[in-house]
This record gives sequence, structure tokens and C-alpha cells, in this order.
Amino acid sequence: MSLTNATPLEVARAARLGSRKLAVLSTEHRNAALTAIHQALADGKDAVLAANAKDLDAANKAAENGTLSQSLVKRLDLGKKGKYEDMLQGILDVRELEDPINKTTARTLLDDNLTLSRTTCPIGVLLIIFEARPEVIANISALALKSGNAAILKGGKESSHSFAAIASIISSALSKTAVPSDCLQLVQTHHVIADLLKLDEYIDLCIPRGGNKLVRMVKDTTTIPVLGHADGICCTYLCADYPPEKATKVILDAKVSYPAGCNALEQLLVSPEALTTVLPPVVTALLQAGVSLRCDGPSLEALRQNLDAQSAALLQPASDADFDTEFLDLILAIKTVADVSEAITHINAHSSHHTDAILTLSPSTAQSFIAAVDSSSVYWNTSTRMADGQRYGFGTEVGISTNKIHSRGPVGLEGLTIYKWVLVGDGQASVDYGSGGRKWKHEKLSVEDVEGAGEWTARNEEEREVLRTFRAGAGAEST
Amino acid sequence: MSLTNATPLEVARAARLGSRKLAVLSTEHRNAALTAIHQALADGKDAVLAANAKDLDAANKAAENGTLSQSLVKRLDLGKKGKYEDMLQGILDVRELEDPINKTTARTLLDDNLTLSRTTCPIGVLLIIFEARPEVIANISALALKSGNAAILKGGKESSHSFAAIASIISSALSKTAVPSDCLQLVQTHHVIADLLKLDEYIDLCIPRGGNKLVRMVKDTTTIPVLGHADGICCTYLCADYPPEKATKVILDAKVSYPAGCNALEQLLVSPEALTTVLPPVVTALLQAGVSLRCDGPSLEALRQNLDAQSAALLQPASDADFDTEFLDLILAIKTVADVSEAITHINAHSSHHTDAILTLSPSTAQSFIAAVDSSSVYWNTSTRMADGQRYGFGTEVGISTNKIHSRGPVGLEGLTIYKWVLVGDGQASVDYGSGGRKWKHEKLSVEDVEGAGEWTARNEEEREVLRTFRAGAGAEST
Repeated sequence: MSLTNATPLEVARAARLGSRKLAVLSTEHRNAALTAIHQALADGKDAVLAANAKDLDAANKAAENGTLSQSLVKRLDLGKKGKYEDMLQGILDVRELEDPINKTTARTLLDDNLTLSRTTCPIGVLLIIFEARPEVIANISALALKSGNAAILKGGKESSHSFAAIASIISSALSKTAVPSDCLQLVQTHHVIADLLKLDEYIDLCIPRGGNKLVRMVKDTTTIPVLGHADGICCTYLCADYPPEKATKVILDAKVSYPAGCNALEQLLVSPEALTTVLPPVVTALLQAGVSLRCDGPSLEALRQNLDAQSAALLQPASDADFDTEFLDLILAIKTVADVSEAITHINAHSSHHTDAILTLSPSTAQSFIAAVDSSSVYWNTSTRMADGQRYGFGTEVGISTNKIHSRGPVGLEGLTIYKWVLVGDGQASVDYGSGGRKWKHEKLSVEDVEGAGEWTARNEEEREVLRTFRAGAGAEST
Repeated sequence: MSLTNATPLEVARAARLGSRKLAVLSTEHRNAALTAIHQALADGKDAVLAANAKDLDAANKAAENGTLSQSLVKRLDLGKKGKYEDMLQGILDVRELEDPINKTTARTLLDDNLTLSRTTCPIGVLLIIFEARPEVIANISALALKSGNAAILKGGKESSHSFAAIASIISSALSKTAVPSDCLQLVQTHHVIADLLKLDEYIDLCIPRGGNKLVRMVKDTTTIPVLGHADGICCTYLCADYPPEKATKVILDAKVSYPAGCNALEQLLVSPEALTTVLPPVVTALLQAGVSLRCDGPSLEALRQNLDAQSAALLQPASDADFDTEFLDLILAIKTVADVSEAITHINAHSSHHTDAILTLSPSTAQSFIAAVDSSSVYWNTSTRMADGQRYGFGTEVGISTNKIHSRGPVGLEGLTIYKWVLVGDGQASVDYGSGGRKWKHEKLSVEDVEGAGEWTARNEEEREVLRTFRAGAGAEST
């Protein structure tokens, strides 16, 4: 990783060239780079924490002046118990995941000796813009290298000392590996972002990780594809048949366990029959947890009749705007919907298509909901807070996407890959087919026995052996 | 299909609402709509050809004035032998393809009674802008409906009478099916495109099919994701070990069979050893086919010494610009490259990442080339003209993508889908895990026995039966 003050064009060009070399490195070489980074960051813990202390000092002063929130200061602290070790373990977790590239995911025999394969490969050059948390740089570097992508990273200014220390350690570690150091570059100055966002010739994908102001700015100013989400307005639809104790547990988790998270619950939709049965105990628990509730007319009326006077006094009427707001706080909007169709229509119009859930015992109602809700994650009988790469089994994530193309939901290694179509023939011409007399076979072939890169070019065991030897050799040569 | 003069906002909103209904229709309902469109277009052939004759009249007059090319006039002609029948057959071909939506493509057991599934679904609303060929409207309508997507279509003005006739027939046919008519809308006025391109709230994906001027305009003016390619600069690298007769056949096909195609060959890269052996017979055949050759220094010199004087006199020296130009004509640029590495570097820098090929008998050279060339299709020993959805076995295509995300290469049904993550639980909360004491299982499950939509919600045979009954009922009700 180079810590760079180069011009945006130099940064992007160098990343593109580096990405070409990285894309053809073997799994072993990419994993070895992760091992080296892990070891170097373990050895360099004191230096990183010393740099982190400088960021914390500055942040604490800013917090005293009121220009920075206390929660942000907490997020900066790499010295917090177990945080540094979690960061290190994350690198090893990614290393242990299956290699996402050079996998053949489909094969078709177009004709005799004419085989089409779809083979996964890296996207190329990623531009990742993120905010405070300094450990994110290690996660993202690990995901990028493992998936064969070069990455240009830009972190928030509050963590600049920590980032610089980590980058310098990663840079020195990479210099002893097969990965070109330009494959990971940390840009230090803020004003280069606008210029980088113009370089669609060199940068293939931009991933902004931060508040919706950052994401909207990025989406509105670049022709580079953007993966991410601006808002996390998650809804849960509570049906009358769902047991109150389970409903309380799930809804409390969704709203209270991390209200600042993009997967936190912002809107509770309630069926009319649930207003006086399941909802009151749920609301009582939410009020006890300090949640402010903004209720539509029917829910406000029903709750006032079914709660004690002290609790009822805490309820507030909801405005229309409350059903289009990401609160990121201990606030929840409650709306009454006639049935599952109205719940679906409301969610498709007002949620941010991140994660929406239904709580019901009816499989057919759940089925309708899951089929029709147009969100990246749709849940039945669990908490919206489950939307997370680690929880989905991806090791970690570069972000959560609400896009309708490429990757949707938590984005791990697979979301950082694309594919190429590989066609292996024996001198066939297109004019041979159709009016040329030959017919396409279009016979689907199994991909089960295709082992890694290059198997698509082998038409028999002899050629396969040649390729295995070649690959072993190519791997050894490029060290 | 409505033939509409509504405002762009009305068009887009209606498409979005229509798409919600279309997305949950059964396979049978979507297929029935294709059957109805096919029958209506078969019955309405005379009306369509009469309208097409008006377009042809106008086009022939424009061609006489020199404002339209003869090749464009030919492309407009729907009455040409077999063309109308091919268009009709294309609709049936798409109908017969496997349903691309509601397929479970991955399943993970996160914990007991907590199963994550990745299920394919439509993207939503497509905006498809295309140029002259009138039959494209039928192909695209079929692909959109089959994949559950609404589509807003805008065709070139030269085919306006044909489009109007086809749209009115499709509209009337759809009105007797379960597909809302707003799911296919043909906008008639050109000036609405700029406004439609701003409606990223309602339109999920834009597919421009046309020349690079159109594609660049679209890419530069919208924040809607764009799928397509601006240029088709395809290269073939010819090695000295490849038999001259096969090389001639493949290269002639790639250059001459349809020079205006985006998959036509524009650059031939040649290894130094091939200049005096394989290249001369290839070049002789190209010259006989009327191809103008623009040669770099070494190839020009070698060919002048190895061709007869008459042929040699036809060769022209290449300029640097020739290696960044999409000729779309009987012109080929020839460049000498030292080895496969130089061929790869040249292609990654100068091809348009559409389709590039190598001709060699060496598996290890082919392996290096295929692994390192960063293009959507990479071929060994066959013609770049193979890059086509029908040839790849996709039935037909909405276009060819050189994007690095979502769909790459020919885009058929699968490229018009995305997925949602479906999580089915039993009251679990996120705080149960990690420091809450429970561990994630993250056990990969087979997707083999998952049948279609909704199987993800069934946890046992009994629930599965309930869902099957429910689905059958839901299908019947919505007719």
C-alpha cells in the first residue's frame, strides 16, 4: 500500500496497471499477501496505537468544543478491548474463504470442440471512500486483495494518523510479496475525490461507505458505477397472529441494539387486529428502552386505550415525513395497515429497499410479502439487524448495496467479482452456422469437475496436465 | 403495450406500478402473455407490413436524397424473406426458455431455524433506447416480460410507423392477459429521452442499443445504471504456430461476414515469426475480399516482401489512431507484437473490452492470454463474431455489455434479473449472537431440491404442500 500524495490521474493509472498484475496472481500469492499484512499489523500494533492516540486526542478536543460527537470518538478508538485483535482476525478470516475468482460458473457446448465457459474474475480498480472507523482499512484491503482487485482508499480526516500508520505498515509488508504495492493506495488529501470520481477510464467501481450525504454526493457526481446505499429505512410488518414475546424480542433488537446502524428498524407497520393485542406489550418494552414512538391516528388511539396513563402520555402523533425519515436514533414511527397488500405497497413506496421484515405465523401471508417486497433483504420472523456480511457468512463486507444491479444486500468477496466469457474452439467461423448449414448444440455442461483457472482451455486429461504444470510454473516464476 | 404521448413522469410511474404486479405473476401468466403477443403479431402481419411500407417509402426517398444509407433502408425492411417469421419465432424461443426468476441460487443455514436464501427476481423498470430495426421491439418485449421486468421503449424515428403498428397489436393482445398494459410502453416523441434519463427513482436500468454517439450521450447524462457498450474494437492475436488455412477462415469470418457488427474484427496482432509464414496467405484472402489493410512498419515491410506486387501495392501504412478506431467497415489495422505479453498489454489498452481472440496451438500461451485479457469475451481459436446472445444459447439478447459490473458480454434473460436475500427465522434477535453467546452455523445448503418461488419459506413437507396449494390458488385468482 502506498500512502500517496500523487495526482488523482497518477493514482488511478498506477492502480490500473497494478490491477492487471494482481488479476493473474495465484490464490497462494494473494493469500500470502494477506498473511504478510496480518503479521506486519500484529508486529506494528504499538506504532498504530500511538498514531491512533493522536487521532483520539484531536477528536476528544473536538468533542469538548462540540464539533464532534462522543459516539464518533468511540468509533475511532482502536485501543478498545479486543478491537485491534478483531481487526487482525478479520484478515485471517478473509484469507480462509474460498477464492472467489477463476471459478467456472457455467459451461455450454456450443458445438463439437466449441465450448463456452463463464469464469469469474476481479472487477479491476475499486475506489472506496469511507468515514471514521480506522479498522475498516484492514477489512477492505483484505477483501480487495483476496478478490484480485486494486483499491484506492480514502478515509475520513478524523482517523488520518491511524490510517497513515496502518498504510505504511501494509506498504512495507506488501513490498515483500508478489502483489504490486500500487494495488492498494491510500490518498491523503480530501480535495482529490472530485477528480478521482471523473476517472471512469481507470476506476471500475466506487463504494462509498458513510452517511447519506456522502453517498448522494458520490452518486450525483460520477459516471463510475456506485455500489452502496444512501439510506437505511427498514420496516417491519407485525401481524396479529405473531406471539407477543417473540414480537417484542425481535422488534426491540431491530430498534434498540444499534439505532445508528443502517439495518435498524425505523417503521413498524401493524395490522388492525394487532393494535390492541400484540402491539401494546411491544410498545411497553420499547418505551422502557427509551424509544420515542410516533404513531398514526389508529395506533395512537388504540394504544392510549390499552396502555397505562404514564406510558400513553409518552406517545406522539406521527407526521407524514416520519414515514420517509431515517432516524438513526431511538425513534420509531408506527403505522396501521389494513392487510399484507397495504403493507407491501407502503414498503415499496417508503422503505429504502434495504431490509424489511414480516412477523407472522402464516406461511401464505409471508409468501406474499417475500415475493412482492422489492428490497435487497426480506425477512420472515427475524430482526432487520441480521443484514450484515459477517452474519450472512461472507466473513466481512465492503458495504451493503440497495442497487438493483450487480450486488444487492451485504457485499462480500463475490460482490467484488465479475466474469468473462471464455470460448475455446478449433477454427470455427460464425458463417458456418445458421444459413451456413451447421446447427448450434447449446448443450449445458456440468461445472462440477472444472478445477480452478484454466481448466476451460483443457479438452482432455493430457492438456489438463500441461495446464496444471504451466500454472504451477507461472506461479513460481512471478514471485 | 401502450403507445404513449404521456409525460415522462407519468410513463415512468405507470411502468413502476405495472412492474410491481408483473413481478409476482406466475411463469404461466408471463408465458401466456408471450403466446398472446405471438398470435396477435402473426394475425396482424398485413397491418404491420403496410405500416412498414410507409417507413420504407420515406426511407427510400431519404436514401435518394443521400440523407440515409442504403444499408439502413435494408435493415428497416420487415417484408424481407423470413424476417417477419424469424421475429415471431424469437418470441416463442424466449417463451420456451427456463424462467429466470424465483430461482434459489444459494442457501445457508445461519442457525437452527434461520435459513438465508438468495432468490432471483426482476430488476424492475428498464428503459431501452434503440435505433432502426423494427423487429427488435418484439425481441425486447419478449425478454422483458419473460424476466418479469416492465420496459419503456424508444425506437428510432425511421421505423415509427412500424413501431406504432406493432405496439398497437401488442397492446391489444396484452389487454386480454394478466400482464398490466403499462408494463410495456412505447414512447413516441424523441425529446422525452432527456427527461426519462433523469427519473432514477422509477427507472432501474437503461439499455441503449445503437451507435457510440447514442451510448455516450446516455452514459454521460444519467445517474441510472447503463448496460451496454459504446464501441466494438475487437482484436485477434495470430501466433506463428497456427495453421494458415484455419487462420484465414477465422480471420475472414471475423472481418468480412458483417463488418458493421460490434463483434467484427478491427485489429489483427501478429507475432514476428508469423509475419512471413501465416500472415501472407491471410492477407491475400483479406485483400481478395476487398478489405483495406493498414499495417504497422514491420508487418508492412514483411508483407511487401512476401506478396505479389499488385497485392503489396494495396497495403497502407497504419497511423496511431488506427489502433483506437472502430472502423465498422472493410478496414483492418495490423500490428506486430513481440510476444503474448505485448499482445495482452496492447489489447488491455486499446481494445474496447468487447471480444478479443488468440489463434495458437499452444495451451499455455492461450492460458496466459485468456487469464490476462480483461474483456467481456475472450476466445481461443475462433472468430470474434461468435459474441452474440443467440450463438451463446440465450435465445436472443437485449444487447452486449462491456460493463465491469452486473452483466458482461451478450445479455439475455439472466442479465435482466437481480436477487433478493430471503431470511426465514423463528424470532431470533441479532444480540443473541457473538457476545450474546450463540454461534453462527454458516452451513452451506444445497439448492438442488428447492423448487421455484416460495420453497424458501417451507421448513418441512407439510409447509411445502401448503405453499404449493397457495401458489396454485394465487395464480388462478389473479387472472
